[in-house]
Amino acid sequence: MLEHHAVAVRDGIIEQVLPASEALRQFPNYENVELPDHVLIPGLVNAHTQAATSLMRGLAPERQAAAEKRVLSAEFVREGTALACADMLLAGITCFSDMYFFPESSLEAALEAGMRVVLGLPVMDLPTPYASDPADYLRKGLALRDRYGDEPLASFSLAPHAPYSVPDAAFRQVATLAAELDLLIHAHVHETQAEVERSVAQHGMRPLERLRKLGLLGPNLIAVHCVHVEDREIELLARHGCSVVHCPSSNLKLASGFAPVDAMLKRGINLALGTDGPASNNRLDLLGEMRTAALVAKGVTHDARALPAPVALRAATLGGARALGQGAKIGSIEPGKRADLVALAVRGPCYDPISHVVYAAGREDVTHVWVDGELRVRDGALETEVPALHSRWQIWQNALEGPADS
Amino acid sequence: MLEHHAVAVRDGIIEQVLPASEALRQFPNYENVELPDHVLIPGLVNAHTQAATSLMRGLAPERQAAAEKRVLSAEFVREGTALACADMLLAGITCFSDMYFFPESSLEAALEAGMRVVLGLPVMDLPTPYASDPADYLRKGLALRDRYGDEPLASFSLAPHAPYSVPDAAFRQVATLAAELDLLIHAHVHETQAEVERSVAQHGMRPLERLRKLGLLGPNLIAVHCVHVEDREIELLARHGCSVVHCPSSNLKLASGFAPVDAMLKRGINLALGTDGPASNNRLDLLGEMRTAALVAKGVTHDARALPAPVALRAATLGGARALGQGAKIGSIEPGKRADLVALAVRGPCYDPISHVVYAAGREDVTHVWVDGELRVRDGALETEVPALHSRWQIWQNALEGPADS
Repeated sequence: MLEHHAVAVRDGIIEQVLPASEALRQFPNYENVELPDHVLIPGLVNAHTQAATSLMRGLAPERQAAAEKRVLSAEFVREGTALACADMLLAGITCFSDMYFFPESSLEAALEAGMRVVLGLPVMDLPTPYASDPADYLRKGLALRDRYGDEPLASFSLAPHAPYSVPDAAFRQVATLAAELDLLIHAHVHETQAEVERSVAQHGMRPLERLRKLGLLGPNLIAVHCVHVEDREIELLARHGCSVVHCPSSNLKLASGFAPVDAMLKRGINLALGTDGPASNNRLDLLGEMRTAALVAKGVTHDARALPAPVALRAATLGGARALGQGAKIGSIEPGKRADLVALAVRGPCYDPISHVVYAAGREDVTHVWVDGELRVRDGALETEVPALHSRWQIWQNALEGPADS
Repeated sequence: MLEHHAVAVRDGIIEQVLPASEALRQFPNYENVELPDHVLIPGLVNAHTQAATSLMRGLAPERQAAAEKRVLSAEFVREGTALACADMLLAGITCFSDMYFFPESSLEAALEAGMRVVLGLPVMDLPTPYASDPADYLRKGLALRDRYGDEPLASFSLAPHAPYSVPDAAFRQVATLAAELDLLIHAHVHETQAEVERSVAQHGMRPLERLRKLGLLGPNLIAVHCVHVEDREIELLARHGCSVVHCPSSNLKLASGFAPVDAMLKRGINLALGTDGPASNNRLDLLGEMRTAALVAKGVTHDARALPAPVALRAATLGGARALGQGAKIGSIEPGKRADLVALAVRGPCYDPISHVVYAAGREDVTHVWVDGELRVRDGALETEVPALHSRWQIWQNALEGPADS
């Protein structure tokens, strides 16, 4: 924690972190953004979302699947993701890991918004307007990766949806491709008790054991949720160096359960945080997830020292970066890293900036956001308004609501 | 839920709720505030806080008692409460129920900010710079009530701090005075398992049973927390018509436990919401508490239907108003009630305004706040800035931090 310091940024890279007075001497020609009553933190990493579903935020859960089926298209994904990107930037999120259909449309929207994105290339055994079967999903995803592999703000993961929606053969193919192409694997894992039980009935084993047998466990696995994991499964995740993405609001709202994050952290598992899709949260607010994670861990363990503020902040920044294989590139404010930075205004006393950011601050305090050195939010407003998006909400909303009940 | 409606306000009272087009015809000379993309909700009622402790927000819990002892004064309470009022108004809180020392200073600050307040007149067996013993506390509190009894925005409760800090004799006196003077009783009840056990050891009974024997249970009791209550205690609270103030963030942060709000609601108990003191939360954000309450109830009961959005919104508005004995005066948008109103900007699709307010909205969306018909927040900013408060934070912070460790 450094007071009265400045961050010198050049060509999108953090050049130096130094006392503010020295910075003025050393870099007299740099543009100077003074933030005297602020805390500067690394850009927040939303390690799991389905950004496009922001257009379904607030739609009753039991109506979402049918509504999604009716509207799912490249255009829906592009516009939903654009809406989500605007929302996330204003909340201090500079990077998100997405898992949804038509990832090329998510990519377009993220790049237009100037966000860093890890695109999950979805794989599942369910025909959709995007793809017909696991092989088709994989083909389309890999073609996208080939086309955009050099895009500085984008990277890719293979995203087999979940153990219950992906057959063994497809999982094996994912494991092989991930190894060959050095790709991340992004999957929902043990979100609900029901899915664990279904796996035992169908496969004779719990999902994590099945993933282990299929060769999916490793440092490139981003295991989302991990709500219902036993001690030996925590051990398994730790031993294989997997990262876990904790989505506390979603787990609460869907009554999935309480992920044992305290135990996972004690076992040394790299923890990241995610909002999950805005249709099951319903806020794209990682500051909020950080606070909720820190509070709920204390309630569940009956220990006010569980998930302390520095650990929560790390999960929302460097933990996310590491889960996404970008720990050397983003996630902390260090010379040589990309300049993904967020400034929060401090109102009222501040005894400990880290405690303040985790427990007291909120997205209403976010004033400035830089992604890769580019200013995306200034004084709490987007630098570039998303054109015409506002007028289109109602159109999508009408399409998603569908005909009224008769 | 009404769409395209207007609220006509005159002399601080809601005169009519009618279609916007009719309102323009019927009240052509009224000032017209158009909020086309907004939800209008009743002012939020923060049914339990210690506003002045906003100056200690973020101070390590183990250092709070000593720090408070060092600075506790009328001036500390006035300035801390002024800071809290600014914070609460911006978050859409129009009324708060306070429990702290020097309530005359809290009152001054609340009236200066233009907020509705229920001042707890503290009673406890602990000498402080404010009062020496229970009798002294009561004498000072009642003198304040005599002086300000006619203040339209202020009302009063007797606030015996908690069963563990108030002796039987003082409780009996509180019960008698409350009955004689028709006053509310505002007390912490069963916040922690430890205090319940201590009561069994000291008094041979659990605190609620002791309160019952001492004649404290009744419709005027505002029982704060009620985390550790058994079924028969829920039954007791219900039978006596007590209100319960649920403070979910505080209960989580202090690892107190999970209040069984779902069971209390099912038994028909009137539920209100509170932030608790900003030093143990650390946000004065009732929209946040509403969301946290709704989410955590689902997690705890494993039932996504627990504490649904309309019930959460009611707890934060009419439930709070009723707990504070003001159900006929505030808490809903109805002709004849005082005009405590909050407008929230809706960004993105909105399928159900109540779901939106509870799960998706946040204090960053609050644009306008009226208390008793007076505009206090316009376009997300206070109408009247608190003079010189900002420059005084650091002074208080230094005093509270005290000398550095050596």
